[in-house]
Amino acid sequence: MVYPTRGQIEAAAHRIAFGIHRTPVLQSAFFDNRFESEFFFKCENFQKAGAFKSRGAINAVFSLDEPEVSKGVATHSSGNHAQALARAAALRKIPAYIVMPENAPRVKIDAVKGYGGVITFCKPTLEARVSTLKRVIAETHAVEIHSYDNLKVIEGQATAAMELLEEQPAPDIILCPVGGGGLLSGTALSAHYFSPATRVIACEPTGADDAFRSFKSGKFVPSVHPKTIADGLLTSLGKLTFPIIREFAADIVTVEERSILEAMRLIFERMKIVVEPSSAVPLAAVLEGKIDVKGKRAGIILSGGNVDLDHLPWQ
Amino acid sequence: MVYPTRGQIEAAAHRIAFGIHRTPVLQSAFFDNRFESEFFFKCENFQKAGAFKSRGAINAVFSLDEPEVSKGVATHSSGNHAQALARAAALRKIPAYIVMPENAPRVKIDAVKGYGGVITFCKPTLEARVSTLKRVIAETHAVEIHSYDNLKVIEGQATAAMELLEEQPAPDIILCPVGGGGLLSGTALSAHYFSPATRVIACEPTGADDAFRSFKSGKFVPSVHPKTIADGLLTSLGKLTFPIIREFAADIVTVEERSILEAMRLIFERMKIVVEPSSAVPLAAVLEGKIDVKGKRAGIILSGGNVDLDHLPWQ
Repeated sequence: MVYPTRGQIEAAAHRIAFGIHRTPVLQSAFFDNRFESEFFFKCENFQKAGAFKSRGAINAVFSLDEPEVSKGVATHSSGNHAQALARAAALRKIPAYIVMPENAPRVKIDAVKGYGGVITFCKPTLEARVSTLKRVIAETHAVEIHSYDNLKVIEGQATAAMELLEEQPAPDIILCPVGGGGLLSGTALSAHYFSPATRVIACEPTGADDAFRSFKSGKFVPSVHPKTIADGLLTSLGKLTFPIIREFAADIVTVEERSILEAMRLIFERMKIVVEPSSAVPLAAVLEGKIDVKGKRAGIILSGGNVDLDHLPWQ
Repeated sequence: MVYPTRGQIEAAAHRIAFGIHRTPVLQSAFFDNRFESEFFFKCENFQKAGAFKSRGAINAVFSLDEPEVSKGVATHSSGNHAQALARAAALRKIPAYIVMPENAPRVKIDAVKGYGGVITFCKPTLEARVSTLKRVIAETHAVEIHSYDNLKVIEGQATAAMELLEEQPAPDIILCPVGGGGLLSGTALSAHYFSPATRVIACEPTGADDAFRSFKSGKFVPSVHPKTIADGLLTSLGKLTFPIIREFAADIVTVEERSILEAMRLIFERMKIVVEPSSAVPLAAVLEGKIDVKGKRAGIILSGGNVDLDHLPWQ
């Protein structure tokens, strides 16, 4: 198993500081009273490009050496990594080649274009995305930056929990969502290095519970036909992220769609902040009573805020 | 003309500190770049009970002497003042009698009840509200706390701009919405005392432009059949607030409904925070080019975040 060292995560924090927000940690009297707990919400919805993905993307792009990086970077993504990588490449003044499914939301396409990303559309299947990316890389000689299965990306994502722990040392637990596992493996590593007594518990929609099943069985289970409003959590775990999660995450729990929706609406209504469905998954687990938070100090990573405001899921 | 002194506003800040949030001042690279300005958003949408109204209500309730206050407080309000006063009374452990129009939104009624307020419903006219309140006060001997035409309320509202100026001294301008003028008169007084070179400019919907017409003509113009999505800004100026505004506000500008809507959506989308339509009125004036912000440092008071999430106005 390979995984980032403490020193590499600290170096990543320095490397990316110029290009990210040190996002605030918010508290909520409403949630604290309701669950007799003390919550600390790390607001990556306020992050540059609207999600934690900016951390990993900048760390990966700025870790590459000059001759290697000059042809640009490339990835396939329909979501926040696409925007984050396009922005990171723009900061380094290199091209970003983004393979996107032809049914990607207009707002995401516009955001990638807004950062100067060069988009290649493909059929909305994983096979088409992978083969199209392979062709784009063959043509451009760009370096692939995978959205989660990349050590430099994992280092970058780890800095969100690292900042949370600097601000609120030694919480009992940290909750975060899990999709491909970039955020989760980074979070679990930061807890391991900077707050060893803190348990990291990942939360996943029942309709996309491949990480849960992989974690519980100890064998990789791919994400097949996932169905959830948490559109950031559809992907399978990676070759790098799965072993890190097995070693350093304490548990994974699953939540129902209606709880995600209720949690998301409560965050809007009570905290007055905009989050995307994936961000609401950890609080959904608290609403369902899946995680014992009573009397505990609980960090929650709100992963992003890129939601379609014309079609909020409770409407 | 009577108006709060500098010392009274400072005393109000101390009096209410136990029961309000010192709300954050956010910045936005998006808006700064777009308008070549530097904006400081004072986030009263994060305030207790969801709006700046908590400041004035607590200051008024906790300024009353013991025998006077023991019978409780009363007001008529369909909006944020109702919740804020109910909460302030609960903090002082006295009754709050709230007269609300029978067509008030369910969410506001529930919020008042949630704080223990005693609601009396009336027909949705100003006459019915005033006469019903008179009857309630005759029966209960409660003290009326008007939602804006009350010096203690004005002192309390002034503390929002006071905090903004402590954090970001001497901006060129401060923008805020105007309805009854409680927030505006408090803001203008705080600028006068704590940052005399700062110009305070109020922003008002064209569909409810009574403050604009009063300010420009120098004669009180009542709000008759106002029509705007900014439901916090429907009321007429008060006997106390109008003279303070004439003396201490630099200007009032009006904005179209479509600009309010666009500004509100941009705040959700770009700042990832939830605001009510009234909060978006100052930024709407910037969008319309009504206020020259280029090269300037501009404070904006986001007045509240109590919006019906089931019926966002752009949908």
